[in-house]
Amino acid sequence: MPATIPLKRPPERFFHDGQAVRLAARSGRFVEHTSGIAPGYVQGNLVILPREAADEFLRFCQRNPKPCPLLAVSEPGDPTLPALGADLDIRTDLPRYRVWRDGELAEEPVSVGHLWGDDLVSFVIGCSFTFEEALLADGIPLRHVACGENVAMYRTTIATEPAGRFHGPLVVSMRPLRPADAIRAVQITSRYPAVHGAPVHLGHPDAIGIVDLARPDYGAAVPVAADELPVFWACGVTPQAAIAAARVPFAITHAPGYMLVTDRRNRDYAIL
Amino acid sequence: MPATIPLKRPPERFFHDGQAVRLAARSGRFVEHTSGIAPGYVQGNLVILPREAADEFLRFCQRNPKPCPLLAVSEPGDPTLPALGADLDIRTDLPRYRVWRDGELAEEPVSVGHLWGDDLVSFVIGCSFTFEEALLADGIPLRHVACGENVAMYRTTIATEPAGRFHGPLVVSMRPLRPADAIRAVQITSRYPAVHGAPVHLGHPDAIGIVDLARPDYGAAVPVAADELPVFWACGVTPQAAIAAARVPFAITHAPGYMLVTDRRNRDYAIL
Repeated sequence: MPATIPLKRPPERFFHDGQAVRLAARSGRFVEHTSGIAPGYVQGNLVILPREAADEFLRFCQRNPKPCPLLAVSEPGDPTLPALGADLDIRTDLPRYRVWRDGELAEEPVSVGHLWGDDLVSFVIGCSFTFEEALLADGIPLRHVACGENVAMYRTTIATEPAGRFHGPLVVSMRPLRPADAIRAVQITSRYPAVHGAPVHLGHPDAIGIVDLARPDYGAAVPVAADELPVFWACGVTPQAAIAAARVPFAITHAPGYMLVTDRRNRDYAIL
Repeated sequence: MPATIPLKRPPERFFHDGQAVRLAARSGRFVEHTSGIAPGYVQGNLVILPREAADEFLRFCQRNPKPCPLLAVSEPGDPTLPALGADLDIRTDLPRYRVWRDGELAEEPVSVGHLWGDDLVSFVIGCSFTFEEALLADGIPLRHVACGENVAMYRTTIATEPAGRFHGPLVVSMRPLRPADAIRAVQITSRYPAVHGAPVHLGHPDAIGIVDLARPDYGAAVPVAADELPVFWACGVTPQAAIAAARVPFAITHAPGYMLVTDRRNRDYAIL
């Protein structure tokens, strides 16, 4: 697995809504990461697979709802996703993609129209940016946001529930929080089951196979202070690990941190 | 502060409802602790104060809702609490009381009718037994219950919000839980704000002034395993500590573990 493209500090500019981000990405004017780019709008992880693998992947998502909460699935060959954006074109509307061949990263283009085919099915999976916005709005500091870094992510010894060729470890994101904030974060993220929901673990990284918090498998390390706890959430990078493990002949995903920005509002996904 | 009366193992017998427990206590037939004694029925901490102190104490509870969630307050001199039980007599219906004089424990009688007066006001405060029942029903093991012990309680360096003469440390109860159970326990106990609600802390006892988990200030120590976290809830013993600190001339409380059992159902206090 190659290292993630380093994220620059959060962009100075903001977009008014999800559509504005997509149009800017489509035109090539916007090629930055999307953290905080359009406050209030849902961002999503992207997986595109040929139809012959898509059915298995759909079952994989159904069986692993915490790392793979599905926000939308396209018709085969259809590059639109009207549930997430009126004019959305999945081939052009993300600022950066990853192309996978036989489970290996092949390229990171800024559009995938040249690779499109009639049998491709798009999956959009909920992203922690939604619950991070709710945490920040509640006054809970997030160190990776303050540092302008991508969140630290780790492969765990927790296995996903396999489906066909798709299997692999649960990948988690980690945010260091003071104990009272960790408790509040459980409450807040429990409101968002469509975007990974409550944490899966906290406090004992070794219990889920994480040997060294300073060496994440994806993203950037952040320090955990002596009076903090590492808090772990199921992560939308899990399907990328499953695609790599499955060695599917061809797949497209977003580049980590360069997400699909939709017309849906974060608040629409709060259940309480 | 004297040591708590040791709790025997949970009683073999159960009562059908709260009224049956109260009648048995009233007649002197039941003098055991009340943990698990009438499943489904709300139990409460008791504080009885002379009217001249009661107004300040009521403000103390209002300002400290996590340790002192009020379930009912009586009229001065009235030993009934119809909101909690049709025939309830607060002078006789608990299996054991504590009598405090000038902030010191004076005696632990099984009824307080001989001490009753026209100016006494009774306060019933929510008790963790309500949320413990919900945790156990969810399959979360509670070590002190398995051990037949009273829960471990600690004075912290978190100060309560004072009101008049009432002040003192927040007292917390501690339950060791595995990380995934700790997360679930935050979710479950958040449903019960009237009985202490979500934890106030987890994972770093030293951060709230607890030096040695093996030496609780009240109740019995239980071991915390290497793969567990100590999880801390605000505790209804907090008002007893405030009464001791205030050195009120006269007060009556329940004896820890020997609670008022009411006609209300635990489920009535779940908000979600």
